[in-house]
Amino acid sequence: MRNSSRGAVDPFIVMDVMEAARQAEAAGRHIIHMEVGQPGTPAPAQARDALARAMSDDPLGYTVALGLPALRQRIARLYADWYGVDLDPARVVVTPGSSGGFILAFTALFDAGDRIAIGAPGYPSYRQIMKSLDLTPIEVQTRPEARYQLEPSDLEGLEYQGMMVASPANPTGTMLGKDALAALIGAAHDNGAAFLSDEIYHGIEYDRKAVTALEISDNVCVINSFSKFFSMTGWRVGWLVLPPDSVRQVERLAQNMFICAPHAAQVAALAAMDADEELEANMAVYRRNRQFMLEGLPKAGFDRIAPPDGAFYVYADIAHLTDDSRAFARAILDEAGVAVTPGLDFDPVRGGGTLRFSYARSTDDIVEGLERLERFMRQRGFIA
Amino acid sequence: MRNSSRGAVDPFIVMDVMEAARQAEAAGRHIIHMEVGQPGTPAPAQARDALARAMSDDPLGYTVALGLPALRQRIARLYADWYGVDLDPARVVVTPGSSGGFILAFTALFDAGDRIAIGAPGYPSYRQIMKSLDLTPIEVQTRPEARYQLEPSDLEGLEYQGMMVASPANPTGTMLGKDALAALIGAAHDNGAAFLSDEIYHGIEYDRKAVTALEISDNVCVINSFSKFFSMTGWRVGWLVLPPDSVRQVERLAQNMFICAPHAAQVAALAAMDADEELEANMAVYRRNRQFMLEGLPKAGFDRIAPPDGAFYVYADIAHLTDDSRAFARAILDEAGVAVTPGLDFDPVRGGGTLRFSYARSTDDIVEGLERLERFMRQRGFIA
Repeated sequence: MRNSSRGAVDPFIVMDVMEAARQAEAAGRHIIHMEVGQPGTPAPAQARDALARAMSDDPLGYTVALGLPALRQRIARLYADWYGVDLDPARVVVTPGSSGGFILAFTALFDAGDRIAIGAPGYPSYRQIMKSLDLTPIEVQTRPEARYQLEPSDLEGLEYQGMMVASPANPTGTMLGKDALAALIGAAHDNGAAFLSDEIYHGIEYDRKAVTALEISDNVCVINSFSKFFSMTGWRVGWLVLPPDSVRQVERLAQNMFICAPHAAQVAALAAMDADEELEANMAVYRRNRQFMLEGLPKAGFDRIAPPDGAFYVYADIAHLTDDSRAFARAILDEAGVAVTPGLDFDPVRGGGTLRFSYARSTDDIVEGLERLERFMRQRGFIA
Repeated sequence: MRNSSRGAVDPFIVMDVMEAARQAEAAGRHIIHMEVGQPGTPAPAQARDALARAMSDDPLGYTVALGLPALRQRIARLYADWYGVDLDPARVVVTPGSSGGFILAFTALFDAGDRIAIGAPGYPSYRQIMKSLDLTPIEVQTRPEARYQLEPSDLEGLEYQGMMVASPANPTGTMLGKDALAALIGAAHDNGAAFLSDEIYHGIEYDRKAVTALEISDNVCVINSFSKFFSMTGWRVGWLVLPPDSVRQVERLAQNMFICAPHAAQVAALAAMDADEELEANMAVYRRNRQFMLEGLPKAGFDRIAPPDGAFYVYADIAHLTDDSRAFARAILDEAGVAVTPGLDFDPVRGGGTLRFSYARSTDDIVEGLERLERFMRQRGFIA
């Protein structure tokens, strides 16, 4: 059958790593997973209990396209609790994961051919979703000195109709402070461009709270999800916060493109938002894991790293060790039994010299993984 | 904020009906729902039990993008059981509802500007999803004599890159026989166009089995869902069957656009496929309801109808009663307390003279609704 050209997107390289890891496991090897960007924990028990109850007394048919009113209200309250921002629930749209949020936001805001500025390194699906929707990602090479975040000076002279940032970012875990974020929002607005803020890692922060774009302007589109902090990746439920004048357009698109986000996931998400104790226990694991990583990676010879402000990733510069991060990651998997992600997924230009390590799994796995990495690097002669 | 022009899709008119019905109920009125296209029944008990078990011993994180292997295999087996078709599970892609299936199929097969032939009346989201993805729906006015299904002669001289049909169809419930379907597939292929078959109402059939496009050709894209026959609307899980050479393109798109269909819904769907007894009980209700409709609607003065072959709708020609189906539906809601769908959602050209009645709810509701419709039509003087 015919294939479209816009549909010819790049594969996720990490998927090849995952498949190779799966094959190794099928062959009886024990693999430590530092490649995947998802918690090892399930949805909070309260969330699963709420769904178990709902399954016995609610047919769980379609919800309205914008999402369960109680969930939209509860999400609005999160902005008061976390940031002191007073948010009208009418501006909250529940989406099928942040993935569905991207599709809705991109089609609601942009026409074919529009250009959207994003920083590299960054989440690889940004550019693939844009391509599949006939949008043009303008990938800007961010500076290590800016901790791989966009700066207004990067965008001077560029033509773009949208700008999107992520803070905390994937793969670096770095955050934009309020001033830096405000400067970017200002640059976008000066340019007549829409500003989108991917806040999917909010809640997973270490030394200071992440700043939401809503603290700075109402004229922004915020994308978020229950996948990471609320530990609900497979449930596919997230949300958008929109300027009031964008809600009706997104509602009509959502009615037609998705009908609604999964009802069961919405019920579970609402209860997850009150599972403070379990969510805090998850955070304690991430904090502990991060500490092990910041000590163990340099000891293993991965010393060109920066402490992440948030999320559960460490992005390592290995350009002094190799220019082929894909082969290097493969060797780590084959020889050390640790799955890691080559940087090429995140930065096609410089990613041959970087790796992303995820520490979202259990602390035992992290400790074991770090030992294996150290052994590998010693055998390779990179450390004494 | 800026709004795109492609995102300016039409609203579902039925949503306005649903909102008016909700307001009437909030004001204390009792409303019979003949507007909604979803079963009143929940997912089968076996499906909910399977999920309850999975929630206690599986973190339910992301699945692979193509879906749980066991579910893909079970779906392939359905084609053997229902149609005697031998299907390679590698050609099955689990999607976030048929909605996600449309988005994946359209972006994988078509580039911006491509034209897709569909029949009117038809499911309104077809044309809205196409518009949002910069595709051009070519709406062909089908003939009542063809029971509102496309015919090859409708398409002569037209330029199109895709053709899509639905059998059983929404809003008419009519089906394409094997010869008629084969003729359309042949016409599409002669034209170098991709052929898409929306089979979401398969399983809900009355006098004869629906024909799948896969009985005729492997070079087709089939879209299906667990929403209707398996009674899982709100779970958002469906599937595509693709030609082998399209799977890789759809897989890459699915990885980036959706990551995966909801894991919980996939677990439930797998168990739902073996819930024969409960599914057969649901079918018994539809059969009974259909009989009541075919007797009660003509008695109430809605005598320009055809018995549906499948699905749970009756499409009535009311052009002799009104040319404003929207106002007529509103009057039925206000005066009779029955919510019905004006035909304009399905056919912008002729829908001012049609109504869709759904009989997906309980038999008690159907009986009561028909009595109310009869009273309304008598008061209006349309019947003696």
